[in-house]
Amino acid sequence: MRRAGRREVRKRYALPRQGGQPVPIATPPGYRPLDERGIVDYLATLPDLSARLGGAPGDWRVGEVGDGNLNVVFIVEGPAGDLCVKQALPYVRVAGESWPMPLERAFFEHRASTAQATHAPGLVPRIHHYDPQLYLIAMERLHPHVIMRRGMIDGVIYPSFAGHIVEYLAQTLFQTSDLAVPAGRKKAEVAVFCANTELCRITEDLIFTDPYMVHERNRWTSPQLDDAARAIRGDAPLKRAVSQLKARFLCDTQALLHGDLHTGSIMVTEDDTRVIDPEFAFYGPIGFDVGKLIGNLLLAYFAQAGHEAGPGGRDAYRAWILGIIPEIWNGFAARFVELWNGPRAGDAWPPALFGDAGSLQIAQADYMRRLFADSLGFGGASMIRRTLGFAHNADFERIADKDRRAACERLNLQLARELILNAASIGSIEAVIERAVEIRREGSAFS
Amino acid sequence: MRRAGRREVRKRYALPRQGGQPVPIATPPGYRPLDERGIVDYLATLPDLSARLGGAPGDWRVGEVGDGNLNVVFIVEGPAGDLCVKQALPYVRVAGESWPMPLERAFFEHRASTAQATHAPGLVPRIHHYDPQLYLIAMERLHPHVIMRRGMIDGVIYPSFAGHIVEYLAQTLFQTSDLAVPAGRKKAEVAVFCANTELCRITEDLIFTDPYMVHERNRWTSPQLDDAARAIRGDAPLKRAVSQLKARFLCDTQALLHGDLHTGSIMVTEDDTRVIDPEFAFYGPIGFDVGKLIGNLLLAYFAQAGHEAGPGGRDAYRAWILGIIPEIWNGFAARFVELWNGPRAGDAWPPALFGDAGSLQIAQADYMRRLFADSLGFGGASMIRRTLGFAHNADFERIADKDRRAACERLNLQLARELILNAASIGSIEAVIERAVEIRREGSAFS
Repeated sequence: MRRAGRREVRKRYALPRQGGQPVPIATPPGYRPLDERGIVDYLATLPDLSARLGGAPGDWRVGEVGDGNLNVVFIVEGPAGDLCVKQALPYVRVAGESWPMPLERAFFEHRASTAQATHAPGLVPRIHHYDPQLYLIAMERLHPHVIMRRGMIDGVIYPSFAGHIVEYLAQTLFQTSDLAVPAGRKKAEVAVFCANTELCRITEDLIFTDPYMVHERNRWTSPQLDDAARAIRGDAPLKRAVSQLKARFLCDTQALLHGDLHTGSIMVTEDDTRVIDPEFAFYGPIGFDVGKLIGNLLLAYFAQAGHEAGPGGRDAYRAWILGIIPEIWNGFAARFVELWNGPRAGDAWPPALFGDAGSLQIAQADYMRRLFADSLGFGGASMIRRTLGFAHNADFERIADKDRRAACERLNLQLARELILNAASIGSIEAVIERAVEIRREGSAFS
Repeated sequence: MRRAGRREVRKRYALPRQGGQPVPIATPPGYRPLDERGIVDYLATLPDLSARLGGAPGDWRVGEVGDGNLNVVFIVEGPAGDLCVKQALPYVRVAGESWPMPLERAFFEHRASTAQATHAPGLVPRIHHYDPQLYLIAMERLHPHVIMRRGMIDGVIYPSFAGHIVEYLAQTLFQTSDLAVPAGRKKAEVAVFCANTELCRITEDLIFTDPYMVHERNRWTSPQLDDAARAIRGDAPLKRAVSQLKARFLCDTQALLHGDLHTGSIMVTEDDTRVIDPEFAFYGPIGFDVGKLIGNLLLAYFAQAGHEAGPGGRDAYRAWILGIIPEIWNGFAARFVELWNGPRAGDAWPPALFGDAGSLQIAQADYMRRLFADSLGFGGASMIRRTLGFAHNADFERIADKDRRAACERLNLQLARELILNAASIGSIEAVIERAVEIRREGSAFS
């Protein structure tokens, strides 16, 4: 959900106003949005954070750097160290007060961050402080990390990314599932995250619903993709399959998800990987996290043609992307099963019933097969929403030439549709890669 | 969970005691278990209930009639009317203090009853009063209703039962699902019922786990079924399939379930049907309620051979049972889809995506096909637990001749196993009925 212009969004998404005036959004006592000055004054009251920055408040430099759709984010630099401070606003940042959004998303981000830090230490930013009144999180500033999506647009290879994200996925998803957590403890957490419903609703609407109907929030590269948007709106089998995925998203509390795991939620260097921004966290189907990541990598693959200087200029980079996708799925599946075979306290697949390891292996293979199909379906849905829905990706948006952009997007749509409709019959991640290459080859022949 | 002798259960299920003394169970302030005298004194403080009974407290007759495993139940009769008063104890009634059980089950029963009364008025008892401190519910006394299971043991036909239970199932399950309720409101209710975890745990253990392993709580007709119990403990495909059902039970918040919908939770007359005791209520997979009911009817079918005076004496009754099972499934499926086609506010299968009714019909058929498979699986698991697990049914228990009982139970196990393993490939409820008849015919040939 990045890079939509604020004015444009407000126009498209305006909610009713009373008497032509914006309706002020009520906020709880003690809440106030902080500006640069307010951030310094606030941090000065907190000895731990002040010490981390060093020097006196007058020595601290503050800059607002938020480029996401939802929140404000400050970088604070002091003589001894630095901090990243993120505060929720009572509305969607890019849309303004016309699109209210609960402050509690900061609570859920903090709670999910805490769980993730336990299960995948070193793969998320360290959290230093949470203020429940200001809905503010102070965390480690990641430096010199960049948002992975930007790096991929620039064609930068991240050699340690696949291994890191495998560990992040396997640990955060396995360790919050019924395989690892006794039912009573898990249900208590499920209950907490049930309240993050407004953030879930964004996904329900923007991913699983709007792109498949006429909706004022939708946009696409027009007129080039008008026919494709129309075809998808009339594609009954696809709409049924996506609605089935939505039903799973609404009902299935398999594990604590990040909830928005695309390359814009990952910060990287050559040898470090951190997953950020888990404010969409909730208990949902595991395949949603895995699939969203894979879908966004496939999308980045199709976008490369829009970023290469000349034909074939990004061949090596494309090969890298297509190489890490199987590395991620196969690595994740292997690591997940490895954790399953270790000590665990969950109530699902009771160890007492599976003394015979061979019998359990079949159950595990079956579990991973279902999870693979889920991931392909959710991945496909993520690819379509970035082409026809409200929130687009820089991967495509940065391609200035509309014809060229549309050609990339069209191939992306084609694979996405196949992933959703054939999820249950695609036998391996290698088959997905093969199909991606074929679609690009066939598409290039026509363009 | 009826009819296990209290002393026997306590012996089998005793928990550790400190220094040989029972550990007293702490209860919240204001809670005290009421006896007959206490019930009268309590009701006398409540003008509405006193008026309902009429006369003076001295005129009221009270009797404890609870025959369930968990709670105490009083019938109070006055000159003008009567009441049923149910109170939760801080332990499992049949087991005593050695098996603590949260009082909050009365809260969940009350909350579920309220929802069910809204969606299926006339098919549940009317609730007159709930006391959150005493964990006590005062409700309509059902008279001259009997527990349906007893009627079925006696061979009594209930001509209006199928139609009534179809309406109960369709309304309570549809109206609490994502088809009917907007996601935010539904998640708020899911969160509430997440706390009913101890009651869910009974199901997780007693239905999905214990019967498939060596466990001190298990019992069966021995030595007659020793081989069958051993075979099931060694049946790896069955254990995998049941574990998959358990995972669904743990994760899938499809609708607000009754949670224990067998013929012992239904009170009937010739022309009235009431579903009682929803203390196991939680948001779970719809097929669990539907399947538990169908499984218990199939079990009653196999039990008839133990109750008939001579061979063929219950043929007509067997025909009635086998007739209502398809009536229930087909009626439920049709009514559920009818509700789906009516006005609704839920977020699943958004109406805006399915302007073409034909396209929606395919989605509905697919939904009901999945639900049918779920129901067969959960139904089969319910049949096995009543033969090899902790809590048995009067249907079998009342058959005094152990050889005869074991013969019935063996056929029940055979169909149950097939339902679980073949759930996805059984094409219709009529095929289930056909198979039940075949199994009985083949079984009779050997016995």
